[in-house]
Amino acid sequence: MPDTENQKNVVHRYIAAFNAGATDEIAALFNEKATVEDPIGTPAHVGREAIARFYRRAVKTGAKLDLQGSIRVTGPYAAFPFSARLMVGGSEQQVDVIDTFRFDEEGRIFEMRAYFEASDVTSFA
Amino acid sequence: MPDTENQKNVVHRYIAAFNAGATDEIAALFNEKATVEDPIGTPAHVGREAIARFYRRAVKTGAKLDLQGSIRVTGPYAAFPFSARLMVGGSEQQVDVIDTFRFDEEGRIFEMRAYFEASDVTSFA
Repeated sequence: MPDTENQKNVVHRYIAAFNAGATDEIAALFNEKATVEDPIGTPAHVGREAIARFYRRAVKTGAKLDLQGSIRVTGPYAAFPFSARLMVGGSEQQVDVIDTFRFDEEGRIFEMRAYFEASDVTSFA
Repeated sequence: MPDTENQKNVVHRYIAAFNAGATDEIAALFNEKATVEDPIGTPAHVGREAIARFYRRAVKTGAKLDLQGSIRVTGPYAAFPFSARLMVGGSEQQVDVIDTFRFDEEGRIFEMRAYFEASDVTSFA
């Protein structure tokens, strides 16, 4: 059963774990066969191991995520706006992002897709 | 070819047309075979005629949409956060929403999906 509070909680834990560089905690939020498309339209990272590898690279950028509005949860889906601040070539940059999650029946992330504000940013990882 | 500026422009026209109750203008932004899932996970409205019918009902609620952050455009995809204010049983309510669009090669909306903040709001139409 979808559980709105649990799904919002997963989003908060996802952001906190990212900012702490806790990639094992991030990976544990995902279904074993989950897919991560970041940004949307690029080849997906498939499975928890590939996802953990992706997030290990992503947190190495030093990016910090800040939620920028409410977490929209509908059934087994969630979408939320946030900003990622990171240093690029010595200057701080902010990228606005919206992530969408689809959850499995146990409340783990089954599909993640990221929409970036800057169309020329192909990835922050 | 995806055109970031055009896609942002479509989002702005979509919101303006909605607030003006101009449902023909809204429908014209969609591909003839487009799908609208509002909210996500419910049966889609398929095709421009069904979509026009859906928006005629939606604008009758008197809902007014306000963009609440940047429009995230990645390739042929866009996502944007907004609020919908509407009167429900004599009191004004605000619903936070994120819409995702997928565009066709001519820059028309091919797929629309809506994520609602309030999980108990099944539709604002």
